[in-house]
This record gives sequence, C-alpha cells and structure tokens, in this order.
Amino acid sequence: MSELRQDPVTKEWVIIATERKKRPSDFTHAPDHCDLSEEVPAFDPDCPFCPGNESQTPDAIWENATGAAWTLRVIPNKFPALDPSEHGQRWVQGLNRTMEGSGHHEVIIETPDHSSHPALMDEREVADILDAYHRRYNELIHLPAMEVVTIFRNHGEGAGTSLQHPHSQIVATPIIPYHLRQKILQTMHHFDDTGRCIYCDLIAQERDAGGRVVLESDTYLVIVPFAAKKPYEMQIVPKRHRASFGKTSTEERRELGAVLHDALRRLYHALDDPDYNMVVHSAPYQEDPADYYHWRIRIVPRLTKNAGFEMGSGIYINPTIPEECASVLRAAAGEAVEQS
Amino acid sequence: MSELRQDPVTKEWVIIATERKKRPSDFTHAPDHCDLSEEVPAFDPDCPFCPGNESQTPDAIWENATGAAWTLRVIPNKFPALDPSEHGQRWVQGLNRTMEGSGHHEVIIETPDHSSHPALMDEREVADILDAYHRRYNELIHLPAMEVVTIFRNHGEGAGTSLQHPHSQIVATPIIPYHLRQKILQTMHHFDDTGRCIYCDLIAQERDAGGRVVLESDTYLVIVPFAAKKPYEMQIVPKRHRASFGKTSTEERRELGAVLHDALRRLYHALDDPDYNMVVHSAPYQEDPADYYHWRIRIVPRLTKNAGFEMGSGIYINPTIPEECASVLRAAAGEAVEQS
Repeated sequence: MSELRQDPVTKEWVIIATERKKRPSDFTHAPDHCDLSEEVPAFDPDCPFCPGNESQTPDAIWENATGAAWTLRVIPNKFPALDPSEHGQRWVQGLNRTMEGSGHHEVIIETPDHSSHPALMDEREVADILDAYHRRYNELIHLPAMEVVTIFRNHGEGAGTSLQHPHSQIVATPIIPYHLRQKILQTMHHFDDTGRCIYCDLIAQERDAGGRVVLESDTYLVIVPFAAKKPYEMQIVPKRHRASFGKTSTEERRELGAVLHDALRRLYHALDDPDYNMVVHSAPYQEDPADYYHWRIRIVPRLTKNAGFEMGSGIYINPTIPEECASVLRAAAGEAVEQS
Repeated sequence: MSELRQDPVTKEWVIIATERKKRPSDFTHAPDHCDLSEEVPAFDPDCPFCPGNESQTPDAIWENATGAAWTLRVIPNKFPALDPSEHGQRWVQGLNRTMEGSGHHEVIIETPDHSSHPALMDEREVADILDAYHRRYNELIHLPAMEVVTIFRNHGEGAGTSLQHPHSQIVATPIIPYHLRQKILQTMHHFDDTGRCIYCDLIAQERDAGGRVVLESDTYLVIVPFAAKKPYEMQIVPKRHRASFGKTSTEERRELGAVLHDALRRLYHALDDPDYNMVVHSAPYQEDPADYYHWRIRIVPRLTKNAGFEMGSGIYINPTIPEECASVLRAAAGEAVEQS
C-alpha cells in the first residue's frame, strides 16, 4: 500500500511507494552504464514488453491490433506508484497530512519492436501513440476521485528508464500538486488582468520574435522557451487555445504525430540520440480552467545534471542560449511537415 | 556576460550562463563514468585545487593557513554562473523579463588533500569548513544588491561534481527565487495563525514522534523528513530558533561540525559512500523573517533519478519509507556526539 505525504512547510505531496520498495543494498554498488553503443535487437526474449512475453505483465487494459498481433498495448504498471484499490482516505497527525496512495499507473507499450522509438518510427505510428494517450487520458480523468493525469515518456537510462523497450507511462493522482496549482493561479492572474490566456499571448510573441521557433505547422508551434531551464528543451504548443489534451480531435493528433516526430528527429540528429523526458501538460479536470490554461508537450533532453545549487535555490543554470539551441534544432534534419 | 531570465508563466528565474557555454558536441558522446572504485591519490598534479597549482585558479579571496601552507582556500569560481562586474540592470520585452547576471560564485577548497571529504575528516576540519561558509556567507549577504546566498556541496560525479578535489560552492543571487518566496509565505501564514515558527513546531513534533530522528545533540536534531522526496534524505535542524545561518556562534558551528560529520559518516557507512548534494538553507537577507523562518542543512543522496513524472507533476516518488531510512541511519556507525 503506497501513501501520499504532504510536506508541512512547502505543501508539496510526495508518493511513498512501497510497491517499489528498495533496501539499502539496492542502492549500493549500482552497476554503471558502460555499454555505450551496444546494438539493440528488435526482439529480446528477456523483455516483458516483447511479443510472446505478455504473460509476464498484468492483463492488457487496451490493445491496438492488426489481425492477431498487437501493435500497441496498454497495461497496468506491475509496480505501481499508486493503487486503484485504495480509497484515498486522508488523516492528519499534528502538522503532517497523509493520504492513502489511491490512483492509477499504466504503461503504454508503444510498439512490438524492442529496438524502436518515436524518432525512428513513422509519423503515423507516433500519432497512434498519441491516440492511445488520448484514450487513456479521457478514461482516467473522468474517474470520480482523480484530479490530474500525467502522461510522460522517459527515453534512455539517463532519463530514468529501467526497461529499454519503447514505452510511455500515464499516472492519475488524487491530488492537485502544489506546483500545478501555482501555475494555474499565475495563468488566472494573467486572465484577470488581460482577459487572455498567457500561453496564447506567448505564442503570438514567439511567432513575432521568431528566434526561438524550431518549427511551425498549421496547428502547432515548437519553441525553445525564453527561460529554458535545460539545454535544447522544447515545447510543442497548439496554436488554438485549448486547456485540455483530452479535447484534441483525431485530425489534431494526426498533425501532432508529424510535429512530435519531427521535433524528436531533430533532437536525435542534433545531439546523437540523447536521453530525454517528455511530458504532456494538461489542465486538471475538476478545475476546467478552459479560458486560461493551455495544454502542451515539453521535451527535455538529459544533458546537464541538477546539483546542490538547483536543489537549494530552485534556480536552474542553463549553459546554453535558448536562441542558439533553437537555431541548431532548426538546422537539424527533421521530417517534412506542412508549413503554414 | 550571463543573464537571468524569468519564466513568464511560473515566475521562476533561470541563469543563462554564457561563461559555462556549451556547444552541441559537448553533450554528445559524453564518456560514461566506468572506473567504479579507482584509488584516489592524496595529490593529483593535474588538479587545479591541489597545493602547488594555485596559479591555475583565480587569486584566493581568503585562506586558512597554518604556517606557510593553506588548509582551506576560498577562490572565485573560474567559470562563474553570475558575475560581480554586472550591475543587475533589468529589462522587459513583452511578457519576458531579463536581468543582467550580477552575483558572486565562489569555491571553498576544503582541504589540500585531494582524496579526502567530510566523512573522512575529523570533526574539527568539518567545523573549519562551516566557519569558512559562515565568513563568506556574512560577507556576501551584506553586499547591497544581493538577496540570497546559497551554500552547497556536490559529492561525486552523480551529484554534478566535475572536480574530485573536495570543495563546496557559494552563490549570491540578486533575486529571491519564486521557490523560496513561496516557502517564506507558507511559514508566514503559520506564524500569523499560531504565533510560532513552523520549523520549531516540527522539531517538537519530530522529537515526540522519535521514529524519524537519526541523532540529536544539545543544539541540533537530525531527521529524515516526514515527506522526504528522496531515499535517505536528512535534515540537520538547529533546535534553537534562528532564521539565518549567518547568526550562528563559533560554539554552535563547532557542535554542528561534529553533528554534520556524524550524519555524513552514517550515510557513508549505510550506503557505501553515495554521491550526495548538501545545501545550507538560510533566510534571505533583506526579508529578515526572524520570527518565522529557520535555517537548516539538507543532505540528499543521489540514489534515484527524477524522470518524466516528477518533471510533469512536481510530485516525487520515494521508493523508501522515511521511518525505515531513519532506522537504518540510526544503526549505522557515525561518531560519538554528546547526547542531550
């Protein structure tokens, strides 16, 4: 049974995940990753996500199949951080607040091919992954006690993946994290002041400035943010105002598949397949801040390490200039995307 | 010239550090760290921090010397994230705010011995490092345009160190990070509600509960926090209320030297010398929130990686139970510290 605990000072929630429980010896003598460019096989008999090994995972929640074989599979995480059988009961002890670790933690196995990943797929396969995100997002966000659904992808060991087989994850949490609440309050202030969504204003500003734009399609803008915390960080922002990723249309996800594919290929070529994290940011359901929040995708390559300064001050040090990163990514080979 | 940029939505500041500027090729083919337990020599002729190589660093700001030889040295960082020659001018362009990267970035070379570090030193040497922190902290915090001084120590490559020679760093920033402002507001609310410092209340609560206490001396309590974000995270909290580390007495730092030494030795023994970050949290000067803020030291071993979930939700997943971590650290061999 996992547990959510709130930091009494900062009000941040932490998941104490007993299903993933580790002993001191699990942390010592960790083998460093020394096999730099080992060839990855298309099928690994020891991989629980490879076709034929389905019995090693929990039963599928949903499968995308052509004929008898699946092309994409959604399963519950075998070691979930949060558990749907919990009821989310809360208790208070002095200044400490605790909550049962209720929630959902699923894995999206993106392809049967062990050696693939989105930068190596075709646009259509990437769009199929986005469709699976969308399907599970809308299922989970409508469950009564769930407040936020986070979709993410960890690419490479340096980005926190333990399994090489291409997959994304989706987690539904019963609380709104402090971090997101603060962001919502900021966007609300902007709306109160101006009557506009701050992200829509930023999109207009970035299109005018131009220097941080990596690529633009009919519906999407890909930028390196003005105050990027990390080198070669990118955001994919829909130009049409919409608070939730759950409200995107099939056509919008087709186009997003091409844009995401293009952005990831640029990263792949410019930085030699770096490890990265990708996150879909979307409005929390019960807030429905349709006027002032704006969904988007953030892609962050793992090129620098946070250290004591970031931990202590909350200020990031970025040793690259966002405009120069955008220029490198513009020049990198992506895929032809219809320009607006 | 480095630059501070504010994220227009979250209001977080980022340092764009051109002195540390990297090209795309600096990030690719990074050699992985494969020499697991190579013997570290007490002197490395190629190390700029080793005795005899002083000409490879900027001139010392301060030295602790016995006879002709220095035992501790404070120098400006050769590749500073912030620069004292900048004036901190600000400008606004649309929604974007920028500030010249004014500030101070210093390195404290803790010992002439290349192979040493605080867990291997004696208590007195650790106290000498704390005295150097205190001296530089008070110098920097009183400079007119500096708002916050962050002292930190990165131990091991996994914690972001590029140089093995034992050292700490100290950075003075001309802005109060959003992160810290939020924490101050929370502690202020608690003070308004109760008339008390929330950290003082937490200390009383932790002493009563007992299960998260690692060790206690006359003046300090070492705990694993209730909502620890990371496995084996520790906080060293002074039992006497005081907002700023800059106000500690020589005697208090002597005792802190023994307590910090003990805590780091426990970590060293329990987890086989893990990489860690250490941060001194202290009140920002110009606020002087003497009644409601409380200085403390946070030590965070680098045992788990943040991944897309933490990045997207701001919620950390801790695969250990704080009470069990405290129990392991209590049982680990530290050093005799006078118990109260």
